[in-house]
Amino acid sequence: MDFVIKGNLCYCESPARLITVPDGYLVSLDGRVDGAYARLPDQYAKLPLVDVGEHLVLPGLNDLHVHAPQFAYRGLGMDLELIEWLNTRAFPEESQYSDLKYAQRAYDLFVDAMRRSATTRLACFATLHVPATLLLMEKLEAAGLRGFVGKVSMDRNSPDILCERSAQAAAQDVETWLVESRRRFTHIQPILTPRFIPSCTDALMASLGDLMRRYEVPLHSHLSENRTEIRWVEQLRPDAASYADAYDRHGMLTPRTIMAHVVYPEVDEIDLLRERGVMVAHCPASNMNIRSGIAPVRRLLKAGVKVGLGTDVAGGQTIDMMRAVTDAVQVSKLYWRLIDQKQAALTIAEALYLATKGGGAFFGKVGSFERGYETDVIIVDDTALPHPQPMTVAERVERALYLSGECKIVGKYVAGKQVL
Amino acid sequence: MDFVIKGNLCYCESPARLITVPDGYLVSLDGRVDGAYARLPDQYAKLPLVDVGEHLVLPGLNDLHVHAPQFAYRGLGMDLELIEWLNTRAFPEESQYSDLKYAQRAYDLFVDAMRRSATTRLACFATLHVPATLLLMEKLEAAGLRGFVGKVSMDRNSPDILCERSAQAAAQDVETWLVESRRRFTHIQPILTPRFIPSCTDALMASLGDLMRRYEVPLHSHLSENRTEIRWVEQLRPDAASYADAYDRHGMLTPRTIMAHVVYPEVDEIDLLRERGVMVAHCPASNMNIRSGIAPVRRLLKAGVKVGLGTDVAGGQTIDMMRAVTDAVQVSKLYWRLIDQKQAALTIAEALYLATKGGGAFFGKVGSFERGYETDVIIVDDTALPHPQPMTVAERVERALYLSGECKIVGKYVAGKQVL
Repeated sequence: MDFVIKGNLCYCESPARLITVPDGYLVSLDGRVDGAYARLPDQYAKLPLVDVGEHLVLPGLNDLHVHAPQFAYRGLGMDLELIEWLNTRAFPEESQYSDLKYAQRAYDLFVDAMRRSATTRLACFATLHVPATLLLMEKLEAAGLRGFVGKVSMDRNSPDILCERSAQAAAQDVETWLVESRRRFTHIQPILTPRFIPSCTDALMASLGDLMRRYEVPLHSHLSENRTEIRWVEQLRPDAASYADAYDRHGMLTPRTIMAHVVYPEVDEIDLLRERGVMVAHCPASNMNIRSGIAPVRRLLKAGVKVGLGTDVAGGQTIDMMRAVTDAVQVSKLYWRLIDQKQAALTIAEALYLATKGGGAFFGKVGSFERGYETDVIIVDDTALPHPQPMTVAERVERALYLSGECKIVGKYVAGKQVL
Repeated sequence: MDFVIKGNLCYCESPARLITVPDGYLVSLDGRVDGAYARLPDQYAKLPLVDVGEHLVLPGLNDLHVHAPQFAYRGLGMDLELIEWLNTRAFPEESQYSDLKYAQRAYDLFVDAMRRSATTRLACFATLHVPATLLLMEKLEAAGLRGFVGKVSMDRNSPDILCERSAQAAAQDVETWLVESRRRFTHIQPILTPRFIPSCTDALMASLGDLMRRYEVPLHSHLSENRTEIRWVEQLRPDAASYADAYDRHGMLTPRTIMAHVVYPEVDEIDLLRERGVMVAHCPASNMNIRSGIAPVRRLLKAGVKVGLGTDVAGGQTIDMMRAVTDAVQVSKLYWRLIDQKQAALTIAEALYLATKGGGAFFGKVGSFERGYETDVIIVDDTALPHPQPMTVAERVERALYLSGECKIVGKYVAGKQVL
């Protein structure tokens, strides 16, 4: 269980501090990082050593928001508007997961792609179907990945085939699934997943809030993705002070809550997210594809809100979290240029921090090579990117992030266990 | 020289008309397309047939704006602002091309990557160095690619090491290079390449305008990339009515002119570009990375301006033109959302059209599988993207464009000649 990886190490201690250790030694003891050393301390000389040569060694990336059943149609129907896309792509596809044979085939593809990707931990929507959701959890756990999977809850404003028949039955299904998944799985854990306010009745939300407290289970949902949706929530929940408050009234905003998107937060919502310690999943590709806009990440960070990154497949077209890092930088530049020049663009180090240690905080001590962090590691082969000039490790990391499609993930460890 | 490709054909006849021929036959006679047939006409039964199975068969993509000497540092220094980036990355790198050994090494990497890419034709900046520029042309021609390469002209506002010593000497160098490159090369042709207004004196521009007419040679430059640059041009050329007019006064706006970027055109500049038949090279990734903004492509198209796509490496981080297609769609969605909801987002068919037949027009009858078009073809293997559901050819093309990093270009023809 204890080992050393020798290679070109790179990690972010803080958003402003990207650390590289060229030809360094990452020591892992009992699944956790002991340190990233320029020279191997004598006491570790006898540990098994994995020499990855010139390859880059980074903390695994954490995908805070991805829809597993949408993986099958990623990169399709991207010309459609949100509602048309949901009706012609998302909902028909998700309804197929009532068929376990289809789920088997589709989730095998998703889990295999995830295993080979830069992602080590994920927070993932399934569908409302309990058997298919348990199947997905089983496959992810078997692949050695860690994180959270949610059976989706939706009992209104949804197509008949994806609408749970009553709040009571829906809540009962969630409780059954919660208990069974906790019994069966260790590293893939359940997370409550009301789809979003428009698709959950107040009664169902109240029951889910109750389950959240009774079972001490985390929660994952969508918040303020686009203005039409925000106005809809205002109509559906006139009692709430804001979209965020509509969740807060059910006790759903906690340090164990992920809210995806947050493209159009009001000032009081930003305050609420910070006070409650909610983790925001910024999904830049999805926000472009579904024409939502650009989330004000710099404002959230300045206000002290926790932020990580998500791919939001299939609003986003790819599960490649390295791409999510550079997408986050690119849209932040457009935000600065087009919306508010007081909000500086993200640097590559800041965006990499969000994808590693920033989002990793949702999973525990995850996302860094500092002592005590779980040993989540990806080995990146960038030899398909030859160059005529000398390059530093930091430069190679930046280039690998921008050109991830031309690099290969050739090794991966989660909590010290090799999964690729 | 005559042959048939059997595979899943897809091309754009117009921006609104994407045509697919599943399991179709592309017949090429003497380097030009005879037709894209659902069934092979009897008279072609004896032609050599290349069966590419389930692969996708598309027209080659045309990169209208790429800096060959910047390829070596693509994806680097992307946190820098334009001027800092030019001073710390672009200029020091370009100055190295005075050394033919360095140019040899760096251009080998560029040309090899281009050969393996989705690009069949390109319009490319070199540096101001004549020997290195001839070397680049030689390598591109040997690789079987076609298009234009420009020895860059710059005689003011440039670092000493990259500043030509007089307008007269600079113009003489261009003329020598023009004559020699026309003598030596057939399919890679010279294109006049004043870097942009700020880096060329009026005297040099006048000489280049004169060479353009005398030698009937095309021209490639930058126009309206960002507001600071535009204000600078206003100061440098108070006589000109606009940035575009500063070129027009030297007769440089013609149907054989490419202007890259055009992010902030005035109404009269759009009219001028249309009247002169200028081709605009839209470079969405570069416009994000260098924080320029988003070019108003829909406005240009509505006005009847010709538009193609460019990667603008290394403002853009990749020479992957399939990515440029989806980048163009994504930024057009943000333009619609954030700037002007009267300007509809580009569809995937429209963006693919721009990259094929749209930009291809600069090279002749290029970019389509209609009869008479030169046989520029790429074979795309998307088997790394398995799917549980049936998919049409059009869906697979959309997905391959969005996930080009997961696809492979496994074959390429330029004007009927296999180059990969």
